[in-house]
Amino acid sequence: MASKRGRFIVFEGLDGAGTTTQAQELVRRLRAAGERAHFTAEPSSGPIGSQIRMMLAGRLVGYRGGSWDRRSLALLFAGDRLDHVASDIEPKLAQGMHVVCDRYVLSSLAYQSLDNPAEWVAAINRYAPPPDVTFFLRVRASVALKRRQAASPGTVDLFETLPQQKRIERHYDRDVEAHGKRHKVQVIDGELPLETVSEQIWADVERRLPRRR
Amino acid sequence: MASKRGRFIVFEGLDGAGTTTQAQELVRRLRAAGERAHFTAEPSSGPIGSQIRMMLAGRLVGYRGGSWDRRSLALLFAGDRLDHVASDIEPKLAQGMHVVCDRYVLSSLAYQSLDNPAEWVAAINRYAPPPDVTFFLRVRASVALKRRQAASPGTVDLFETLPQQKRIERHYDRDVEAHGKRHKVQVIDGELPLETVSEQIWADVERRLPRRR
Repeated sequence: MASKRGRFIVFEGLDGAGTTTQAQELVRRLRAAGERAHFTAEPSSGPIGSQIRMMLAGRLVGYRGGSWDRRSLALLFAGDRLDHVASDIEPKLAQGMHVVCDRYVLSSLAYQSLDNPAEWVAAINRYAPPPDVTFFLRVRASVALKRRQAASPGTVDLFETLPQQKRIERHYDRDVEAHGKRHKVQVIDGELPLETVSEQIWADVERRLPRRR
Repeated sequence: MASKRGRFIVFEGLDGAGTTTQAQELVRRLRAAGERAHFTAEPSSGPIGSQIRMMLAGRLVGYRGGSWDRRSLALLFAGDRLDHVASDIEPKLAQGMHVVCDRYVLSSLAYQSLDNPAEWVAAINRYAPPPDVTFFLRVRASVALKRRQAASPGTVDLFETLPQQKRIERHYDRDVEAHGKRHKVQVIDGELPLETVSEQIWADVERRLPRRR
């Protein structure tokens, strides 16, 4: 009954880069190849992640209906991550299941350093274990924003405008440089057609799978 | 209508040191002296604090009903603290109200460094603003534990045994040494009679009150 440890695979990129689509496609391919695979995302679906989602959606608000304290929010993301690891990711990996996670530490570094020093965001996330591989889907901020507008016209969220998307784009480049080795980042051209991107990812993942027999 | 800023007053000490009793007594004395005063405590009564209380009470649990991840919990305490400051403490101080808080950063340092490096607990709490004064009620671990057993026989909580209480006692001494200046710690002999302790605290606080006229 001893099964080999699963692989922990993370997808990163701007909103609109296709992280969710590609993560779900990878889970489908893994299962089609006879592997056990689990899709998950951050913020998690646990108690802390649920609060974070309410904060991002503006349903859980700060003083006099204002926005939630950004440093408090960064600490919650870090706390949710460790619970996500302890209660979901790590147990499944230990059971030999692959875990494919839509966003992880690099998202916190890229997005939360809009409001906080990047070294502090790194410090509060110090104990999040690194994945076996991180696929960073690189897409220009302008392209990512156009995709989002096409996908859901008229919606807004916390991380809105193009100038801000461009700052996040620069943060990702900085963080891939600074944390790429620890998080085993593979940079993928996310502007290529969906199918081309998923083929590239699959070719990479297939090599990494433990041999079962 | 411009009112002077209130004072931010924190009480610290082992469970059983009398922090809650003395904090509430100080609020009573402040009000009796014609001052506006607000009693509060950590974890706060806000959304994050409520989750922490459920975790401490074992109603919100970790993987397979196990204990909550201790690092995740430390991050939640830090996140709750910044929300507490932003949504409750700071607005009241700005309105000229005194805020008396039962436990703050030093509690995190003393208790959470049972499971985590103290420097990391300090790092995640870097942005919590220091109080105007912290009263540390020093009581020996053995005395504090006897008081708790007398007050509620048969109850248990996360921070139980005497050896552990002695570790927390040593942590407080370390943290008063390391952070005493920033948190403006006044050490009070918490083993003196209640009334003597509250008189000493009141004598100190009275000196610190802003002159109203």
